[in-house]
Amino acid sequence: MRSPLPDYLTEVLEACVDDSGALADYIPELAKADPDRFALTLVTAEGAIYSVGDDDTEFTIQSVSKPFVYGLALQERGFDQVLDVIDVEPSGEAFNEVSLERNTGRPLNPMINAGALAAHALVLHGRRPEEAVESIRSLLSSLAGRDLVIDEKVATSELGTAYRNVALANLLRGYEVFEDDPDEIVEGYIRQCSVTVTTKDLALMAATLAAGGVQPVSGEQIFSRDVVRQVLSVMTTCGMYDAAGDWLSTVGIPAKSGVSGGIIGILPGQLGIAAYSPRLDEHGTSVQGVAAFGRLSRDMNLHLMDAPIVAHSVVRRKRVWGEGDDAVTVLELQGDLQFTSAEVLVRAVVDEPPATKRLAFDLSLVRAILPVGRRMLLEMIGRLHRDGLEVVVVDPDGHLPEPDTGYGFRPRVYASQDEMEARS
Amino acid sequence: MRSPLPDYLTEVLEACVDDSGALADYIPELAKADPDRFALTLVTAEGAIYSVGDDDTEFTIQSVSKPFVYGLALQERGFDQVLDVIDVEPSGEAFNEVSLERNTGRPLNPMINAGALAAHALVLHGRRPEEAVESIRSLLSSLAGRDLVIDEKVATSELGTAYRNVALANLLRGYEVFEDDPDEIVEGYIRQCSVTVTTKDLALMAATLAAGGVQPVSGEQIFSRDVVRQVLSVMTTCGMYDAAGDWLSTVGIPAKSGVSGGIIGILPGQLGIAAYSPRLDEHGTSVQGVAAFGRLSRDMNLHLMDAPIVAHSVVRRKRVWGEGDDAVTVLELQGDLQFTSAEVLVRAVVDEPPATKRLAFDLSLVRAILPVGRRMLLEMIGRLHRDGLEVVVVDPDGHLPEPDTGYGFRPRVYASQDEMEARS
Amino acid sequence: MRSPLPDYLTEVLEACVDDSGALADYIPELAKADPDRFALTLVTAEGAIYSVGDDDTEFTIQSVSKPFVYGLALQERGFDQVLDVIDVEPSGEAFNEVSLERNTGRPLNPMINAGALAAHALVLHGRRPEEAVESIRSLLSSLAGRDLVIDEKVATSELGTAYRNVALANLLRGYEVFEDDPDEIVEGYIRQCSVTVTTKDLALMAATLAAGGVQPVSGEQIFSRDVVRQVLSVMTTCGMYDAAGDWLSTVGIPAKSGVSGGIIGILPGQLGIAAYSPRLDEHGTSVQGVAAFGRLSRDMNLHLMDAPIVAHSVVRRKRVWGEGDDAVTVLELQGDLQFTSAEVLVRAVVDEPPATKRLAFDLSLVRAILPVGRRMLLEMIGRLHRDGLEVVVVDPDGHLPEPDTGYGFRPRVYASQDEMEARS
Amino acid sequence: MRSPLPDYLTEVLEACVDDSGALADYIPELAKADPDRFALTLVTAEGAIYSVGDDDTEFTIQSVSKPFVYGLALQERGFDQVLDVIDVEPSGEAFNEVSLERNTGRPLNPMINAGALAAHALVLHGRRPEEAVESIRSLLSSLAGRDLVIDEKVATSELGTAYRNVALANLLRGYEVFEDDPDEIVEGYIRQCSVTVTTKDLALMAATLAAGGVQPVSGEQIFSRDVVRQVLSVMTTCGMYDAAGDWLSTVGIPAKSGVSGGIIGILPGQLGIAAYSPRLDEHGTSVQGVAAFGRLSRDMNLHLMDAPIVAHSVVRRKRVWGEGDDAVTVLELQGDLQFTSAEVLVRAVVDEPPATKRLAFDLSLVRAILPVGRRMLLEMIGRLHRDGLEVVVVDPDGHLPEPDTGYGFRPRVYASQDEMEARS
Repeated sequence: MRSPLPDYLTEVLEACVDDSGALADYIPELAKADPDRFALTLVTAEGAIYSVGDDDTEFTIQSVSKPFVYGLALQERGFDQVLDVIDVEPSGEAFNEVSLERNTGRPLNPMINAGALAAHALVLHGRRPEEAVESIRSLLSSLAGRDLVIDEKVATSELGTAYRNVALANLLRGYEVFEDDPDEIVEGYIRQCSVTVTTKDLALMAATLAAGGVQPVSGEQIFSRDVVRQVLSVMTTCGMYDAAGDWLSTVGIPAKSGVSGGIIGILPGQLGIAAYSPRLDEHGTSVQGVAAFGRLSRDMNLHLMDAPIVAHSVVRRKRVWGEGDDAVTVLELQGDLQFTSAEVLVRAVVDEPPATKRLAFDLSLVRAILPVGRRMLLEMIGRLHRDGLEVVVVDPDGHLPEPDTGYGFRPRVYASQDEMEARS
Repeated sequence: MRSPLPDYLTEVLEACVDDSGALADYIPELAKADPDRFALTLVTAEGAIYSVGDDDTEFTIQSVSKPFVYGLALQERGFDQVLDVIDVEPSGEAFNEVSLERNTGRPLNPMINAGALAAHALVLHGRRPEEAVESIRSLLSSLAGRDLVIDEKVATSELGTAYRNVALANLLRGYEVFEDDPDEIVEGYIRQCSVTVTTKDLALMAATLAAGGVQPVSGEQIFSRDVVRQVLSVMTTCGMYDAAGDWLSTVGIPAKSGVSGGIIGILPGQLGIAAYSPRLDEHGTSVQGVAAFGRLSRDMNLHLMDAPIVAHSVVRRKRVWGEGDDAVTVLELQGDLQFTSAEVLVRAVVDEPPATKRLAFDLSLVRAILPVGRRMLLEMIGRLHRDGLEVVVVDPDGHLPEPDTGYGFRPRVYASQDEMEARS
Repeated sequence: MRSPLPDYLTEVLEACVDDSGALADYIPELAKADPDRFALTLVTAEGAIYSVGDDDTEFTIQSVSKPFVYGLALQERGFDQVLDVIDVEPSGEAFNEVSLERNTGRPLNPMINAGALAAHALVLHGRRPEEAVESIRSLLSSLAGRDLVIDEKVATSELGTAYRNVALANLLRGYEVFEDDPDEIVEGYIRQCSVTVTTKDLALMAATLAAGGVQPVSGEQIFSRDVVRQVLSVMTTCGMYDAAGDWLSTVGIPAKSGVSGGIIGILPGQLGIAAYSPRLDEHGTSVQGVAAFGRLSRDMNLHLMDAPIVAHSVVRRKRVWGEGDDAVTVLELQGDLQFTSAEVLVRAVVDEPPATKRLAFDLSLVRAILPVGRRMLLEMIGRLHRDGLEVVVVDPDGHLPEPDTGYGFRPRVYASQDEMEARS
Repeated sequence: MRSPLPDYLTEVLEACVDDSGALADYIPELAKADPDRFALTLVTAEGAIYSVGDDDTEFTIQSVSKPFVYGLALQERGFDQVLDVIDVEPSGEAFNEVSLERNTGRPLNPMINAGALAAHALVLHGRRPEEAVESIRSLLSSLAGRDLVIDEKVATSELGTAYRNVALANLLRGYEVFEDDPDEIVEGYIRQCSVTVTTKDLALMAATLAAGGVQPVSGEQIFSRDVVRQVLSVMTTCGMYDAAGDWLSTVGIPAKSGVSGGIIGILPGQLGIAAYSPRLDEHGTSVQGVAAFGRLSRDMNLHLMDAPIVAHSVVRRKRVWGEGDDAVTVLELQGDLQFTSAEVLVRAVVDEPPATKRLAFDLSLVRAILPVGRRMLLEMIGRLHRDGLEVVVVDPDGHLPEPDTGYGFRPRVYASQDEMEARS
């Protein structure tokens, strides 16, 4: 059997063909794009790739670079310094030509040009300009899983008419939002925007955010969970310009578009999505790309707020081995142990306390334990110990290194149920 | 063992005690609240309730009623009519005193007073004023799972100084956002705000949104999934006034606060949360409530963008029964079948095709199937049939009523694996 | 000879006929006006009246009442109290739906509705509502020089749809801009707007402002000079809504328009002008009225900034009487003695000092002496006395009561040159 | 006798000493000014100069150059082209960081930096940059009546930190408000601002505007009356930044301030005023300069709206010569013949028609006749002729060249009453 997914995505492409909109013309080089190109790629958080259409067409990344360079700034400079320089508020109905905070000149968010210039400035500070651009190109390459290059022709073309960005950089410099040379920052930012990508590259970048910062193919942890959380939050409220509310309610996928026709979207924990089609609507966003995202969201129930009710299956199996005082109740856990699943586990133990004197939590099939899951599991083990039970843990993957309940009790840890039985 | 959760929540309460802030004083009756009350309640999407502090203290619901009455308007009037009257955009840095769209007067979103008055007007239209209030009181009662009452003393107190709401209602009437009498709308809206609740009530209301519109205790489907999705989207971008971006990035829980000191938050698919403490910060939001939400989010990894990687465990077990041509491969599925889990299932079948001529999908442990899951499962069955396999379904709960693959093939459906074996 | 002015004004009327624009329709009663009525009246600061067209057509005064009621508030409550409640800044490009100052809710100026409601509230405070309206009707009657009446039908018609004014009054009340009942203020304000006038009435009201507060026919000082200065200043920057700069640069006449089709303009020291024609442009201002003002300004060089070079003729005649030590130089002054003319006089005396030992200033033909003129004249007399001259004053009209130079010298005052000669 | 005016102005200086405020520090070179310098100069429309304090201290003109360069642009490019590029509306409460019109980017007025850069660009267009600066330096020199120089040290100092102006120029270029190089425009504008002046220079520049464009000492007509009218109108509504309304109502003198501490004010037809003191208030305006203007306005009744009632003395003398049919009534006119004075003249003739068959208008003492005066005088002569009178004109200065009444009658013109008598 061939997977039906590529066929489905092809259907989506075909259903969304629409020759309205126009190529970006303010950057001469962009106006040379083939207006009929259309591509769509999905990458799951586990690294499965589904891709259709002109997915080997290269185009410049433009504003789709913004969330990643913001992430780089957060990673390198820390949250305090970045938040001090760039706010995270939506720019509303674009009432303010330049979207800077009154008095301070702080850009309202990193998804508008002012904020993206400030993010670039944070990366640049203390480096030579070409080093800053290289560190960004290198980051984007790691995210895409291949070596990306800068289209210097597009960069040069854009630099010639970058009046607005020069204006913003000078305004920011005037407000002392940064101290470096505004011209260097504009040039670096424009070269950042000229990194060349395909939808496959973009979908892998997006999937890295979906997978908590881990590039799903290489397995490299490129961004910390904290940085990913911040980047996705800002994309949710500020990613789609002055229609953030409309996009979130109708499509429900944190996203970012670029003027060359690319759009990325992220469904946290699940998917990275990228579309490409160079004809733009009046907001400067790809017409066909927007249509494809809308269709995917509706057809595939991808809306962020449409979460399934999770975590009911944390206890995969409950078994009792042996008899009498030696009898042991084994709770085989599975999935991710976060708050909701831990709550279900606690409730299961409270509602049906084990009938045996010994109790084992088997974590062999657990995929990940969040801090809250660890705390709740250890707290429960401590309390059960206090109640007189003998509690052990089967943890071949080391989810609970050196477990300490805080009740003066450290449970024994085994590599398997067999070892547990053998040793007890 | 006693569940550690109440103890944990008690710790949160204690850690968040803070006597800064002040009681709302613009409504005389609210100024009489006991400033030291503090309560916190969590209700899971499955209906488990954890509650600490002054959780039997009653207070008026105030603005926390807004998302629910907006939901009621959507449910009764339909999306088109409601969106025509109320936009869904964040009001930004409150630059505009009244937050109406230029020219049309359309309120920017239903979480600000102008939008809430318009939502009330939509519910009121065609009813007598007291019927509209009764339908809202009745809705809130269903959400809370008990009969709620209106505190007429607070309503009367607020009506006496409701200049701003009278102003907004008249502005809206002037723009013809609605046609009913502005005074009736203000009075109805204020009585809506005067419904009396506890944190338990609010957490159950919130949990209903977390559970896709199903009240988790009564099991009643109060809102459709579409309405829930819309309400939660708007709470995400507009719920916390002019700091939507900051709240989403730091706390990450769609929320709504009220001037009497209540706050609700919803983690879709997981939790409803409610806090109460009447001392307010300069935004009119409960000081201790904000602290408690921040603490919960950090400690319990509840951030919306911090989603675990879901759906890897859709195939609970793969077994082969029988031998030779009679041999059947059984895939026992579990959890929710949405896009991500369906993708994992498809990939499992594509990567390791069954070695037998017969294949059964056992849905006995499946909890829910979203439309996308149904479509992908049937598409896969159709393709496997075309490839020559004999495919059947075990579906005791009727998740796939009258399955039709669209390939001219309808798989047989059994109530259990035993029945399947008996019949084949 | 018949004065050519009425003929000229008739020409202006004919040249400005234009049937574009539409009757105000938001007040039902206004929509009944005869759209073709057109009238134009000029009244000089000395009380000469020139009037053409439908100048006996009555219409409601509407917003043209604003500057006069603002003047009444200034007169009754004093500048400090009024400025505390109403600012004097232009509302700019109407970016803010309600034009209130952030935080305080202070209306930006008294020419917008919010400010006019606040001005009415200042007049009303401490009175019964009908007394306040009566004091306004009485003021307007004095200004017009005849007893004006309120068109209660229009008032009632407008009250029925006054949502926006009710909104503004409640917003202001909410900000505590005033403490009285918002409904009473709206009703009073609407009745103020319903006073019925003709262009002759309006031109006389305007001429009163042109003449420094003195009604040019009755001679009554209705407003103090300070109040007139303030009212005219505010009309200059805020009178013509969001096109203050355009109106001032092209027409150059402080003005105020009303939605019933009236417009007044004032050329300080010279003229009051009123036009009436009920078809309005998109700003709610009379189309033909605007055209007539533009034409008058161009044709008649009425632009405020087009001031002639004044005051060169302060010394009407310089004569020498008698001979030897008895000889007296008489400077016969004329016109107004303000700074510029006094400067010319001083310069004349300094440049060509009198050749005689006696010097007389004859004020018989002087019309008015401003305080600065008095001070400069007395200072000069003191200095001339110190230099050894014998200085006297001929002042039949008492322009210089009890003159004291501050140099320990009080000049003698005569009623005529003859008396001076007789006595010396 | 010494003129009391310098003594009075010295008193004003002394009364306004105030060491609050601070030197501009954003331009390093400005911070080196002597903070205690204080000067005040008045120049009348007729060229009399009164000057006190440090009136030979030189400082850079800065923003005080704006009205004059705007005037130059109007003169060179015409009103249509200039208005197309720069609006004339007040920028209100500075709500918009950059004060550009939405969508078009048109600066709101020429008194803010964006508008001043656009005015400079209009002057520069089609010239080499140094030519544009030279034409401006040359204009300012003509206005001041001496050769002014550019302080290149201040210009260089300012260029180093001119981020905000670079930003504005690039924004404007991005909006295609102009097509020249933004860097050239910023450099030219900053050199324009670095022209060095004293208060005497500034007061002469201001007096040129007061005198309808004629430099009162040299007698050169530097600006046309139309340009002066436009420049003064814009100064009235936009000259004092975001407090235009407050300045106009309290001081009442169209004005412009600069960051180096200069302020000019113009009372049309009367005076140009300049003050200098480098300590600035929070709006960037000279503290002592503002105090001095306020004091002068109050003491000397200089408020624009405080106009004296003009024109009552147009008929200097009415005489009858000769007897019988030869008898001639001579009306000796004086002053300026504008609308108001012409109206008085017409009224005099209508109210008291000449008793003789011959009538002469003697213009010997008339200073100027505005177009409206000419038209009204000729119209009256035509009508009197039609009524059977023989009308002649005595006009030694050629105020009425080739007079044509339009009634088929051209009055005879004499050089003097004597000539008239001799010839008739």
